[in-house]
Amino acid sequence: MPAVGYSSPMTAPIIAADVGGTNLRAAIVYEGGTISHRTQRPTPAAEGPDAIVAAIAGLLRDVRDAAGFACAAVSIGMAGLINGEKGVVLISPNIPGFRNVAVAGPVAAAVGLPVFIENDASAAALGEYRFGAGRGTRHLLHATLGTGVGGGLVINGKLYHGATGLAGEIGHLIMDPAGPRCNCGSRGCLEAMVSGTAFAARARKLLATNASPILAGIVGDREPAGIDLFRAAEAGDAVSEAEIRHGGHVLGLAFGSLVNVLNPDAITLSGGLLALGDMLFGPMRDAFYSIAYGPASGTAIRLSELGEDAGLLGAAAVGFEQLGG
Amino acid sequence: MPAVGYSSPMTAPIIAADVGGTNLRAAIVYEGGTISHRTQRPTPAAEGPDAIVAAIAGLLRDVRDAAGFACAAVSIGMAGLINGEKGVVLISPNIPGFRNVAVAGPVAAAVGLPVFIENDASAAALGEYRFGAGRGTRHLLHATLGTGVGGGLVINGKLYHGATGLAGEIGHLIMDPAGPRCNCGSRGCLEAMVSGTAFAARARKLLATNASPILAGIVGDREPAGIDLFRAAEAGDAVSEAEIRHGGHVLGLAFGSLVNVLNPDAITLSGGLLALGDMLFGPMRDAFYSIAYGPASGTAIRLSELGEDAGLLGAAAVGFEQLGG
Repeated sequence: MPAVGYSSPMTAPIIAADVGGTNLRAAIVYEGGTISHRTQRPTPAAEGPDAIVAAIAGLLRDVRDAAGFACAAVSIGMAGLINGEKGVVLISPNIPGFRNVAVAGPVAAAVGLPVFIENDASAAALGEYRFGAGRGTRHLLHATLGTGVGGGLVINGKLYHGATGLAGEIGHLIMDPAGPRCNCGSRGCLEAMVSGTAFAARARKLLATNASPILAGIVGDREPAGIDLFRAAEAGDAVSEAEIRHGGHVLGLAFGSLVNVLNPDAITLSGGLLALGDMLFGPMRDAFYSIAYGPASGTAIRLSELGEDAGLLGAAAVGFEQLGG
Repeated sequence: MPAVGYSSPMTAPIIAADVGGTNLRAAIVYEGGTISHRTQRPTPAAEGPDAIVAAIAGLLRDVRDAAGFACAAVSIGMAGLINGEKGVVLISPNIPGFRNVAVAGPVAAAVGLPVFIENDASAAALGEYRFGAGRGTRHLLHATLGTGVGGGLVINGKLYHGATGLAGEIGHLIMDPAGPRCNCGSRGCLEAMVSGTAFAARARKLLATNASPILAGIVGDREPAGIDLFRAAEAGDAVSEAEIRHGGHVLGLAFGSLVNVLNPDAITLSGGLLALGDMLFGPMRDAFYSIAYGPASGTAIRLSELGEDAGLLGAAAVGFEQLGG
């Protein structure tokens, strides 16, 4: 589009999709971040890659038809290792067997629009930058704190992919070489110390050593989840609370380290661990501001403002960036 | 300069300066990296900031006069916290009392050319990117391994400064929250575990506990330096060798962590610790490639190719970038 003197040319809305292991969500997202035509259906995860791609394409075609006006593109966010240029999902941790699946091509053929696809943590970073707690920054580090820990980097106002599209994997920052074993094989990764999975492992350890009757009462006979540690702490269990507070401390050291290297304007946080509130984030802030240099320069840490729409808005932000809007 | 169809327009050479606590070096550097008119004199460190700035200006004027042809700019690299836009050195660790000193203004007035000034580790990163082991990369992490540990980042072919000019401080990545105390106040910073200073501290500890007769024989009555640990290891001291090998291991974990976040094309290394060779870099490589994700994607680790000219070439690279060349 030639420059015609508008500082912010109107871009047609995007059909955004948030592909999860349980649900497929889609909606129309406008340039300013408003959302319409929300729809969702279950992910047919057990039916194999072809059925899943067909379900994504069908859902997006339905949104396009329901809208009845011209949309600029489709943009999809999903967990996993993604080759955006080729529109291929190399591996998705949440959908068993979803490997080397061409997604963009079949969806584009079905919907008749350009299709962009991006890793969800990277999309979330761009969503916060454009629509959420990262507005007004130029360099942003976004961390997703959930079952695992992921992240994304916006540098000079653009999503930063790195040399081979793997940038932003802050979950595998090594925080303690003698720490707990991570799923990736290393020891003491941030994700192995502060995540839903890490807190569930700590809960299992407390139960195995009979260290917390309160936690044992909450968990009963089932497998413990990370949130059980928080519930026990809220019920007055000092041992469980200490585990969460230690996790917050490690998180603060990690962000302090990262700020020393990246010196972003802000760090934004999203994900299920936000439910832990000050029990996690109090010690995080104390540790963060105890680190010299970078954090002292005034980097803000902010919680996501996008809530349940983070996935859709992140995907849409990727689409608007790709369109140059 | 308007685009006139040359893919690589000729830029006039730069007068580069490398300002150290002991010596001031300057030379003419051409766009392709050749160097002429080298000159140096002692830094009048004891005579105060005004005398030092006057000495820098005088040296650069001498180089300009000796050349007798037009140079495009002056570009200065020096250790410290530097506000490049204002041309002010906020603090320089190697020159006592050098705080909030305007350098670019007085030098520009004396030499009659634009003056750029940059932190030496950032300049070194750009020097490797343009002239050295980082040629051909797009995203580069450079680490300076000497008395301290510093670094610089090139992202999308440009020096990355971060929000407030502090990016690249990889020496304060926290590698072990229970590790040795760093000069910055934190515990277990990379610089506190792998640097000339860190190895000197380890040597002091070995001497205090009579753990190494070989080291004690090498050091005698003086204060130990980091290199003594290496000399003792070369003389067959297993205890000293284990310390250096552990340092290499920690360095590899740090680079693995950083690659997971930054996914650069390559990491380049410079500084005095390169003298330790495979005793340090063998364990470093083993640890680095033991880390999942990023390093597995093929990030290369390369030793600097710039040798003693790294400071001058780094400064010159900053000047050429500023001129858009």
